[in-house]
Amino acid sequence: MRIELKEAADFLLNNDDYLILMHASPDGDTLGCGFALCGALQKLGKRAKAVCPDEIPHRFDYMREGIIEQQFEHKTIVAVDVADTKLLGDMKETGDKAHLCIDHHVSNTEYAERLLLREHYAAACELMYELLCEMGADIDRPVANCLYTGVATDTGCFKFSNTKPQTHIIAAKLMECGAEIAPINYAMFELKTQGRLKLEQEVMKNIRFYGEGHVAVISVMLDTLAAIPDIDSDDVGAMAAIPRQIEGVDIGISIKEKKKGLFKASLRSSERIDVAKIAQQFGGGGHARASGCSFTCSYDEVEKTIVAACCDALRQAGLI
Amino acid sequence: MRIELKEAADFLLNNDDYLILMHASPDGDTLGCGFALCGALQKLGKRAKAVCPDEIPHRFDYMREGIIEQQFEHKTIVAVDVADTKLLGDMKETGDKAHLCIDHHVSNTEYAERLLLREHYAAACELMYELLCEMGADIDRPVANCLYTGVATDTGCFKFSNTKPQTHIIAAKLMECGAEIAPINYAMFELKTQGRLKLEQEVMKNIRFYGEGHVAVISVMLDTLAAIPDIDSDDVGAMAAIPRQIEGVDIGISIKEKKKGLFKASLRSSERIDVAKIAQQFGGGGHARASGCSFTCSYDEVEKTIVAACCDALRQAGLI
Repeated sequence: MRIELKEAADFLLNNDDYLILMHASPDGDTLGCGFALCGALQKLGKRAKAVCPDEIPHRFDYMREGIIEQQFEHKTIVAVDVADTKLLGDMKETGDKAHLCIDHHVSNTEYAERLLLREHYAAACELMYELLCEMGADIDRPVANCLYTGVATDTGCFKFSNTKPQTHIIAAKLMECGAEIAPINYAMFELKTQGRLKLEQEVMKNIRFYGEGHVAVISVMLDTLAAIPDIDSDDVGAMAAIPRQIEGVDIGISIKEKKKGLFKASLRSSERIDVAKIAQQFGGGGHARASGCSFTCSYDEVEKTIVAACCDALRQAGLI
Repeated sequence: MRIELKEAADFLLNNDDYLILMHASPDGDTLGCGFALCGALQKLGKRAKAVCPDEIPHRFDYMREGIIEQQFEHKTIVAVDVADTKLLGDMKETGDKAHLCIDHHVSNTEYAERLLLREHYAAACELMYELLCEMGADIDRPVANCLYTGVATDTGCFKFSNTKPQTHIIAAKLMECGAEIAPINYAMFELKTQGRLKLEQEVMKNIRFYGEGHVAVISVMLDTLAAIPDIDSDDVGAMAAIPRQIEGVDIGISIKEKKKGLFKASLRSSERIDVAKIAQQFGGGGHARASGCSFTCSYDEVEKTIVAACCDALRQAGLI
């Protein structure tokens, strides 16, 4: 059932013992939503814990500031930034029983009893900001840091076309609440570990261009990763943005070997191509400018298949 | 003479035949200010031209939208984002006769007859936005694009600590005026030419660390540049940000060979070190987080000298 801001605020104020679910392969937006809500609920005198099916990368550690580890039997399940319970990994069954979902994905499967959805918002954290305001919750510095992180990361630090005037207004308000933007942005957007630096150099050695230069492909193979010490999933994830940044490229593809014979392709595109549509052809999904899909076959087959689909899209768009 | 917003607005409304001076090695902020003011003055029925002592990189071409090339003898000289007439190259003498300077640099030498200065603003374009509002000028899409560019580029797209709540509020207003943020940000922050990609790979092959890893140095030599076709000053300038992005680095140094025996060092720092002070030791200057200075000696001597000064600063800060 779709609900509105006030109903969601009332629901959160009138219940207790919250289990907050954040999606697998956690990003700044799901974590920002989850920890902001958890911290705000605790400060309202409620019990709450935010959980994620995957390990949370250390660069997000600051989001736990002010949150107390509480032991309790959960009564109310809230999923944040989770479009589909398939994205909850081994917490899928818990997600299927969610009482409330707070999300901004147009692809939301409406699995929760109540759904507060703003599909035109860049970040779920924008919606969470409005919800916490509606609840009269205290947006202190740690909560503001969480919400700012989600807004900044989902918009590429206000660079992408999903950024709206409202996004900037919310960022201004979160700064006034104490959000520490410089260290957050440095950690999210600038900092490169030595491992990431090495990985970048490795993958860039072997970049391939297709479709008259409109498609660029890099691959991240298990062998390469094994040869670089101290590399984490964030470093690997960051590779996805690289091929699309090259002059003339409309579709950037990063193919990652997950395990022998299993590959994940991440697609990034210019305004001229909808890569969600391409990923959907292979059972994947995502946003128009950033999507992904998986393949179980040989590496060469993955590259051939996905590049062919991209070239079809380029032809349809009249770009080649 | 220091003047306030209203006096500057009145001055601009009451005069005509404007020559607008933008600083050498032009960046998004000086160009954004200059072309925004030029466009706005022309739409108010005045004659205006914006000039720069150096060639303007092509990625800024969109800023000329709506601006008419007018032939006239200039009567009123306005310098924008120009802290010192030394930054005007062969237009220095014209700058020394400036009737008005609009700037945000704390280092402004007060060379102009009238100075409108906001040293706590991140971008001169924030001040120009306020000034155009005060003048009742029309901030249409092309003017908004110029102003947005200055605000975005001087704050690293809202990433840096100079970003204030006001910066976001102005960005929101410029978006409402039609600023086309996605293509601007792509061109300013994401797009990498093939040349830049090759240059990055080259300079990263030979990165050096000093001061227990707190200092990273890259060098951009004329030989390297000569071997890469179609490289421009923007591509070279972009290298300056790279060493500082590496984990553990507090001072990133990029040393560029300008000509045989002449080098320019660009310094970038974390919150913990003021690199303006380091550059000042060698006759340079800039901001606390980004500065530069020149050397006339051998490459080895440059690197030794600047690294020694950086290590002194690190010791003073208790970092090594």
